[in-house]
Amino acid sequence: MCVLIALATPLSFGGPAQGAGGIPYSNDMSPGTQPHNPVFKDAPPTPVIRDFTVTNPDTEPDQSWLTRKYTEESLVFIRRHAGKRPFFLYVAHTMPHVPLFAGRDFAGHSRRGLYGDTIEEIDWSAGRVLETLKQLGVDENTLVVFTSDNGPWLSQKLDGGSAGPFFEGKVSTWEGGFRVPAIFRWPGKIEAGVTTTAFGTTMDLFTTFILLGGGTLPSDRDVDGQDLSPVLLQKKPGREPLLYYYFADELWGVRKGPWKMHFKTTDPASVTTWGAWEIEERDPPILFNVDHDPGEKYNLGASNPDIVAELTALAQGHREKLKPGAPQR
Amino acid sequence: MCVLIALATPLSFGGPAQGAGGIPYSNDMSPGTQPHNPVFKDAPPTPVIRDFTVTNPDTEPDQSWLTRKYTEESLVFIRRHAGKRPFFLYVAHTMPHVPLFAGRDFAGHSRRGLYGDTIEEIDWSAGRVLETLKQLGVDENTLVVFTSDNGPWLSQKLDGGSAGPFFEGKVSTWEGGFRVPAIFRWPGKIEAGVTTTAFGTTMDLFTTFILLGGGTLPSDRDVDGQDLSPVLLQKKPGREPLLYYYFADELWGVRKGPWKMHFKTTDPASVTTWGAWEIEERDPPILFNVDHDPGEKYNLGASNPDIVAELTALAQGHREKLKPGAPQR
Repeated sequence: MCVLIALATPLSFGGPAQGAGGIPYSNDMSPGTQPHNPVFKDAPPTPVIRDFTVTNPDTEPDQSWLTRKYTEESLVFIRRHAGKRPFFLYVAHTMPHVPLFAGRDFAGHSRRGLYGDTIEEIDWSAGRVLETLKQLGVDENTLVVFTSDNGPWLSQKLDGGSAGPFFEGKVSTWEGGFRVPAIFRWPGKIEAGVTTTAFGTTMDLFTTFILLGGGTLPSDRDVDGQDLSPVLLQKKPGREPLLYYYFADELWGVRKGPWKMHFKTTDPASVTTWGAWEIEERDPPILFNVDHDPGEKYNLGASNPDIVAELTALAQGHREKLKPGAPQR
Repeated sequence: MCVLIALATPLSFGGPAQGAGGIPYSNDMSPGTQPHNPVFKDAPPTPVIRDFTVTNPDTEPDQSWLTRKYTEESLVFIRRHAGKRPFFLYVAHTMPHVPLFAGRDFAGHSRRGLYGDTIEEIDWSAGRVLETLKQLGVDENTLVVFTSDNGPWLSQKLDGGSAGPFFEGKVSTWEGGFRVPAIFRWPGKIEAGVTTTAFGTTMDLFTTFILLGGGTLPSDRDVDGQDLSPVLLQKKPGREPLLYYYFADELWGVRKGPWKMHFKTTDPASVTTWGAWEIEERDPPILFNVDHDPGEKYNLGASNPDIVAELTALAQGHREKLKPGAPQR
């Protein structure tokens, strides 16, 4: 079995493994404190690397060929391994993260401006990958996952994307920052065209892939991810939602079932300059039924003291149990 | 050919034609000035009528059987006409308009509270209608349209519905007040499962039905509705969007292509008590690209003076040309 993930988030700096490549960090992430963005003139260099070797020494390369380059490299990787051994490919497109660049065949073509152009190019890229899997005859033996890492960066306005019906985006613990689309494709195993409201998180991919590949989970620690295969393969409803919402390394909210409670939130109006956001203490906490009210409009805390107490205790238990790991650098 | 519309808006008072029935007006509409709502104690009576005769003299009937009653009456109507002559049925459900009531088989069943219960009952109702058309063998000779009259009434919170990604709702000229879902079903004529971004309005139904039925449009006046059949039957892209947004009898906005401009808006925070809303003058007008930005977040007026001038002239021409009709009572 092969697994292929297309996750719309760039490769992070810190330790590219054998076969990795691309620009060394997300366009808003750097060893320094400033995001790499046209508005930040002291952004660090973004040469193109393969493993630990710089292959394009231009420290500010034209990123308009990046989606095509990542795609071509992915196809080479698939052709090298398909039919010979199991493989895992992680295609982490830099687009559609600002600053936006579309290839010459896509720039100016969509109805949604440059952002839409980058999306259309990523769609083209996904199509090339699926086409290649079919050509190589490994289509039915490959699980393909398409998802994203977080919601839109709303301070970038139309270049930042949209959270649709959800409130707020990145740099927040509102649903608009956390909910992402996810598509799983595995012909003959996962029924096509089915939409589910089952709960899942990106952390579940680790657990799911290990188990689908016949491996065993480590037993010397708690593993947060859960196995998604009952939802994917048997159309089961999945587990009750349970999620701890972190802002950087601080617990700001918790969800259990349909109930989501915030202890702290960012003030949306303040999230325009990186790092300058204002934090709102929510005491008493605010509570939403995100099944009924996914836009987090109607605070139901006052009329549900039992649920507020239950989620408060859950968060407290989580804080006491969690042992932060050492920084991986 | 038969036409059947399920429009989620109640029958309005003023002149029920042969075969009409139900409660005499929408639950927020009355001959007086107050909406019929539990918070308004001086709401007018809502006896059930058939044509001009009261069939249930209870002036405050239990509306929990209303969806089922409308459905049963619709099936009787279809059975009376199907296969004998062309028919036109307009099923205007009172639900999901506040005050909400669900039938005993639906109350408490959905994951979305009472609002969801009423939606599930309307879904059941639509299913019964489609099933009956099939049983009677007129399924392939009947165009079925399912749509709504306006966006959610947000001051009613979760009982008022949701506009999804659109801003605001009813009692506004924002997209959340105007955009509605529309489903057209006609086996063998309209391809199933196709979604279109083509532009259309409820006014187009008049024109479309007349032409599909072999009739001719009146030539002694301008008819606002356009023929939707090229979009429905031939999957053509349809015409360029053009719409004048009225708040009651006043023109507040205009859209041409992707551009929508507001001259006036209601202040969302003020739309909590019927009639007490505050009106915001928008001078200069605010301009949105509703293709790129359907949530109307980013005012692009300052950087697009030519488009502001074009839409202002369009609105002025419309104001000069329009001759208001006499009240129909």
